Amino acid sequence: MNIPESKLPRVVIIGGGFAGINLAKTLANKNIQVVLIDKHNYHTFQPLLYQVSSSGLEPDSIAYPLRKIIKKHKTSFFRLAEVQHISPEKNEIRTSIGTISYDYLVIATGTKTNFFGNKMVESNSMPMKTVPQALNIRSLILQNFEKAAIADTEKERDAFLNFVIVGGGPTGVELAGAIAELKNHILPRDYRDLDPSDMTIHLLEGNSRVLPPMSEHASKKAEEFLKDLGVKVHCNTYVQDYDGLNVKTNSDLEMQSQTLIWAAGVTGAPVDGLKAETLVDKANRYRVNVYNQVEGYHNIFAIGDIALMTTDEYPSGHPQVAQPAIQQGNLLGKNLLKLINNKPMKAFSYHDKGSMATIGRNKAVVDLKRYKFAGFFAWFVWMFVHLMALVGFRNRVVVLFNWTYNYINFDKAARLIIRPFKK
Amino acid sequence: MNIPESKLPRVVIIGGGFAGINLAKTLANKNIQVVLIDKHNYHTFQPLLYQVSSSGLEPDSIAYPLRKIIKKHKTSFFRLAEVQHISPEKNEIRTSIGTISYDYLVIATGTKTNFFGNKMVESNSMPMKTVPQALNIRSLILQNFEKAAIADTEKERDAFLNFVIVGGGPTGVELAGAIAELKNHILPRDYRDLDPSDMTIHLLEGNSRVLPPMSEHASKKAEEFLKDLGVKVHCNTYVQDYDGLNVKTNSDLEMQSQTLIWAAGVTGAPVDGLKAETLVDKANRYRVNVYNQVEGYHNIFAIGDIALMTTDEYPSGHPQVAQPAIQQGNLLGKNLLKLINNKPMKAFSYHDKGSMATIGRNKAVVDLKRYKFAGFFAWFVWMFVHLMALVGFRNRVVVLFNWTYNYINFDKAARLIIRPFKK
Repeated sequence: MNIPESKLPRVVIIGGGFAGINLAKTLANKNIQVVLIDKHNYHTFQPLLYQVSSSGLEPDSIAYPLRKIIKKHKTSFFRLAEVQHISPEKNEIRTSIGTISYDYLVIATGTKTNFFGNKMVESNSMPMKTVPQALNIRSLILQNFEKAAIADTEKERDAFLNFVIVGGGPTGVELAGAIAELKNHILPRDYRDLDPSDMTIHLLEGNSRVLPPMSEHASKKAEEFLKDLGVKVHCNTYVQDYDGLNVKTNSDLEMQSQTLIWAAGVTGAPVDGLKAETLVDKANRYRVNVYNQVEGYHNIFAIGDIALMTTDEYPSGHPQVAQPAIQQGNLLGKNLLKLINNKPMKAFSYHDKGSMATIGRNKAVVDLKRYKFAGFFAWFVWMFVHLMALVGFRNRVVVLFNWTYNYINFDKAARLIIRPFKK
Repeated sequence: MNIPESKLPRVVIIGGGFAGINLAKTLANKNIQVVLIDKHNYHTFQPLLYQVSSSGLEPDSIAYPLRKIIKKHKTSFFRLAEVQHISPEKNEIRTSIGTISYDYLVIATGTKTNFFGNKMVESNSMPMKTVPQALNIRSLILQNFEKAAIADTEKERDAFLNFVIVGGGPTGVELAGAIAELKNHILPRDYRDLDPSDMTIHLLEGNSRVLPPMSEHASKKAEEFLKDLGVKVHCNTYVQDYDGLNVKTNSDLEMQSQTLIWAAGVTGAPVDGLKAETLVDKANRYRVNVYNQVEGYHNIFAIGDIALMTTDEYPSGHPQVAQPAIQQGNLLGKNLLKLINNKPMKAFSYHDKGSMATIGRNKAVVDLKRYKFAGFFAWFVWMFVHLMALVGFRNRVVVLFNWTYNYINFDKAARLIIRPFKK
């Protein structure tokens, strides 16, 4: 892997998500050799992927080069690689570009889309966890519009204009709202050869309400906003089968759709090699203690979505969102410095900053510990928080400009099929 | 193809480049049914493709949705399709999505990369005529940097860091300058595990000077600027063979390179079906009269790069650049209205606004009819002209912001391998 030998202790971080980059930043120029490994050469700002899918933002404005993040970290290195195996007995990992030893290993690999074992759904639906996947959805939506315009039969056209989003968490709700805006603002203007009323957006949620992790107030408001936008919300409904056209659910809801977007759940993306009992069934998350040490290992840590730390307040682990990842990354950086200097580490305690989701123009729901609110002000807060959380000044400016432009013009300007999606 | 029947005369335009979109704009809301067909759903601003390849601009800022261009043209339609055949006797074209009849047909298909019959070069080198191709080059350059960092031998590493650009026209010159800036400003900062002096950029030009269509003053200055940036300029040199690694030329210049970018020439992209004699050998351009009518046809026109109009001043046709295409598109719009109303058409006369090329930061060459200048002011003029020529306010702002950001920070911020290029 060609990392220079050094006398400094070496921390290897697998994954450049929120957890990984915050850890890397905390360890910058601290007499530690840091090796950050990721299979992409950029950090993805996942909360805004849905805006790439719906042509609102260009992909490059929510991705940030990982090398640029560590460019001033004099003893840090980046390697573009997939990690294949951990050998804890040798303190070594095997990757697509060779092996590397570590003094401390941090697993920050996050999650991947969970199809719950349904192979048909997996091969026919569109996941949205990475930039290329979001671009595939963008292409498919626009290709479907084009195909609808030349469809021979009404039935054929309806299938192209019928969009099914599975999963009523923040991702699904936000995407449904954004696609509804395409119907309401873009179709009437740019697709005069289509009738907007032919377009339907279905949001399916297995629970009894959308945004199940949020408050009932937020769920109620979000559902209201979605309905205002024309989204058909189906609660207590999950998909049983999808062959690329026919959607079958547990209820009597059946329909044809060329586009099924799968935002129904995630599962951890663990790496081979650790003891089986460290990994929790189904969730695929590593059991960690309050210092994010993987159970049974002294020098292997897991942070972010892949880590499962059970506490009294969070008996089934912290929510798999950005905040715990950021906070664990930051704390682990400080703790590693303590560990190396033989000082006692500090236990992690999650500071819940609240949660939020936006549902199109001027509409969002925000749950804070003490206040829950919805509507225009919530939407404004949502925008501000996301803008500030974006990595890099350039990305913030480009995103802010796009939002302003799109807002004023009721537009989503990145309606580009750069690489057609082949079904 | 599902275009509504109407009593209006139908003009079918093949191609949404500079010629096609300017024609479409001129025909907007003029009691003519316009059908614009393109294989992409966006217009590409080709003069800035090289900045996408070199990570300076995001692809979405130089592409513009074709539907958005015609959104206020009430009798205009867009169709995403490839045109396969013209049947002039039936006034009909066949496309990938069905046939369509026309009253007037305008061929504005532009050019494609010319490999001069060299199949080895064609399959191993990187062309740069479309946004996906420019993105492939961006990915390949960045992938090569990553591979150079882990190369086992010096020879292997050198091949990853050896960039060969074939063709010293504006595209080649501008790209060579931009890649040299990656070497000079990005490598030292973001790739501390690479030695910038290991990176080499070769520019090969078959003529005796770079920028052969421009003045000798411009050529001399451009070569000077390129050398200042560290580019190795080889005139009178052309590539004979490239197997993906070994570059063979007509001279004793031989080397190994993982990246050969082919900007050595273009050839027309004609459509099947017209009489063979309408097409000029090698150049593959349709012979047109002063009204851009294809020779021997009354209602078939060709405009832009694909049209060959020979005049006393331009015995071998107009230069294949944006200006003739824009001017012919505009004039043909007016002429078609005259033709339909049985009025005499106006002959095309090219107004040469000059030509220019930029070679990195602060450096450009500009040839106007009366003045030829180079350096900082030329560079400023280059930027202003290109910014104004971009389609769409949003694109202009994003490009201007990126240029400003990159200029201040000596940066090229879109260093993203979104879709890895597989050799």
